[in-house]
Amino acid sequence: MDNKIVDIKNYMQSVGEAARNASRAMAATDTNSKNQALLHIAAAILREKTVLLSANQQDCDAAKANGLDEAMLDRLTLTEKSIDAMAEGLQQIAALPDPIGEMFNFKYRPSGIQVGQMRVPLGVIGIIYEARPNVTIDAAGLCIKSGNAAILRGGSEAIHCNQALAKLVHEGLEKAGLPKSAVQVVETTDRAAVGELITMQQYVDVIVPRGGKGLIERISHDARIPVIKHLDGNCHVYVDDDANLTKALAILENSKTQRLGTCNTAESLLVARAVAKSMLPAMALMLASSGIEIRGCAETCALIKSAKPATEDDFYTEYLAAIISCKVVSGVDEAIAHINQYSSQHTESIVTENYTSARKFLREVDSSSVMVNASTRFADGFEYGLGAEIGISTDKLHARGPVGLEGLTSLKYIVLGDGHTRA
Amino acid sequence: MDNKIVDIKNYMQSVGEAARNASRAMAATDTNSKNQALLHIAAAILREKTVLLSANQQDCDAAKANGLDEAMLDRLTLTEKSIDAMAEGLQQIAALPDPIGEMFNFKYRPSGIQVGQMRVPLGVIGIIYEARPNVTIDAAGLCIKSGNAAILRGGSEAIHCNQALAKLVHEGLEKAGLPKSAVQVVETTDRAAVGELITMQQYVDVIVPRGGKGLIERISHDARIPVIKHLDGNCHVYVDDDANLTKALAILENSKTQRLGTCNTAESLLVARAVAKSMLPAMALMLASSGIEIRGCAETCALIKSAKPATEDDFYTEYLAAIISCKVVSGVDEAIAHINQYSSQHTESIVTENYTSARKFLREVDSSSVMVNASTRFADGFEYGLGAEIGISTDKLHARGPVGLEGLTSLKYIVLGDGHTRA
Repeated sequence: MDNKIVDIKNYMQSVGEAARNASRAMAATDTNSKNQALLHIAAAILREKTVLLSANQQDCDAAKANGLDEAMLDRLTLTEKSIDAMAEGLQQIAALPDPIGEMFNFKYRPSGIQVGQMRVPLGVIGIIYEARPNVTIDAAGLCIKSGNAAILRGGSEAIHCNQALAKLVHEGLEKAGLPKSAVQVVETTDRAAVGELITMQQYVDVIVPRGGKGLIERISHDARIPVIKHLDGNCHVYVDDDANLTKALAILENSKTQRLGTCNTAESLLVARAVAKSMLPAMALMLASSGIEIRGCAETCALIKSAKPATEDDFYTEYLAAIISCKVVSGVDEAIAHINQYSSQHTESIVTENYTSARKFLREVDSSSVMVNASTRFADGFEYGLGAEIGISTDKLHARGPVGLEGLTSLKYIVLGDGHTRA
Repeated sequence: MDNKIVDIKNYMQSVGEAARNASRAMAATDTNSKNQALLHIAAAILREKTVLLSANQQDCDAAKANGLDEAMLDRLTLTEKSIDAMAEGLQQIAALPDPIGEMFNFKYRPSGIQVGQMRVPLGVIGIIYEARPNVTIDAAGLCIKSGNAAILRGGSEAIHCNQALAKLVHEGLEKAGLPKSAVQVVETTDRAAVGELITMQQYVDVIVPRGGKGLIERISHDARIPVIKHLDGNCHVYVDDDANLTKALAILENSKTQRLGTCNTAESLLVARAVAKSMLPAMALMLASSGIEIRGCAETCALIKSAKPATEDDFYTEYLAAIISCKVVSGVDEAIAHINQYSSQHTESIVTENYTSARKFLREVDSSSVMVNASTRFADGFEYGLGAEIGISTDKLHARGPVGLEGLTSLKYIVLGDGHTRA
């Protein structure tokens, strides 16, 4: 082991220890102090716009020099508007109810004890993300409000801006009388820091990776700590026998064409055989007018001359591009079976006027969001009313779907007795 | 790789695939069919007592010949009474409400969609346990009721009895029209089967290990699938400044002496300095009369002549024996800090008449069960009214504390629209 690695290890261990200590204080903090911290940070961000823009400029210049691609550069760039949005996000989190300390389900048991549950923070959350500096503020805000301590490891491209934001977060925490180490932004761009973060079981309770599939797969594979994540968003729209064509067209258009690169974008269209002939041509026309290529099964290709034949792999693919796979199915049962086989369990929508098909689809599709007559694009923490989201999970344990404040909490059992002993 | 390992791998893969398929059917099954299966299994168990006792006798004879220790042999042995208890457990699970399909929190959003959540099964549960044959039936019952498929890998000592039980479980499933492979008992005692089970990510959603700390540590370390578990039960009783001595004595006696070997047994006693002189001697006398050795801090040893000095390690130790560690603390704050440092986050109880101390202890102690004026022995699924438990979790993610039916479920988001698209 060379000296550098030893230093990173020691550095990350001290970050972890400070976070663990801060998490104890944060867990016991009252709602008012947490909200004050959020509002102080928001005010500091608005006050220091110029400083933030100039730190971000430094990052963008370096990124351009290093030949960062256009999409990445876009995500890295701050504007006055995006800085305003950060501050507004914090104000919104401050306005949400505090989930911590909530007690419920208290019931007397035959033994005489009264048993219920209390909502508590998870402890220390490690968040690993790529170029977007706004994640620094979103994640800090959600972790503070949920009484956790956060260790933030942003992309190396955003290091100057993230350090400038960290200073403002610390100012806000201190003004509210909370420990600065409740939110720590990792100060090194050395990748060994990530390796340390995801294996410090004694200091970190959960890892939330945000970014490309490659990053998330690597982290999930190497982590010794539970990871809240999704890898793919291979989302489906199924147009049922009893679909209304107008709704089907609107939902498919919104699901596929509104934004090509988001995880809740539809990547696959299933159409019931009974309506394929009458509805597929109109849908293909609409998709073509948005420049979307169709890769279809044999029946699709027979009906739509412009469609290219789909391979088995196409049905597993999240394109994040102007392509959609398409398959004609016998009905809701085959649609459900296809989805449970090929989808990434993110979000699926049925278009139908049939009560029984809708109910069956809702019950049997095994995905984190299941919809009737609505666009897959709604799968989002803000749209669901969570106030904000730290990410979307397609895992089945703990948090599933958009993850807001509640996903950053756990429950403990509370037992109230009066000297009770077990018989 | 030798032939044997290749076979085990293939065998476990086919078990996994069958379980995954069965889990789809189980997820869509109605409550009545699941309850019928449970009641049919219970009836079959009562009918086949003789067969079960003789299979168990075969296991016990082999175990004796192999020199299995007395405690293990005790856990392995079935009696008419314990067979009755298995059947009764299934009847109790049948009587519990079905958690699956429950829908709640439906709210209209400004966009017009209506968003809520539905409770769904996890999918496939892998359960790894040691000699106790009753776990086969408990686990099968909980998994069936919660709409999951189960892969059960019991200790090799219990193989004959577990195979006999598996036959009866299959009979019950078939009579209720449910797939036999909803509950599979692994038919080989080869340890490679466990290695396969805990890494088949495509087929298994969660692993529940039950048994000694060594087994659970090994499984947690090697698993590529989330594990619901606890390692230790280093539980504390804290006697506060404002404790009532009668309650303190009753709670300490029940917590420590009722059963020495359970995970919810108290292993450490903390006493506030203000009452140490007046209360510790009576507590020591009570413990001595039950043959419990005290290992104490310097102040404890000064007050209690029979106490032996405790090392730092003692305070981390789950004795599972007639020993308790004891420390005098300044008050509730030091008690909380000590517990959050040394405990295994299983169960802790404060004895106090003081409202503020009780509230502080409940909020700040970071354990899966936190109690006021009640014995730590209450930490148990039956005592909490969960109906049954598949285990106790000291993890913070997903299920924490005693894990019943709800711990074997997840939630998915449901979105109801009428052709809604995102703005």
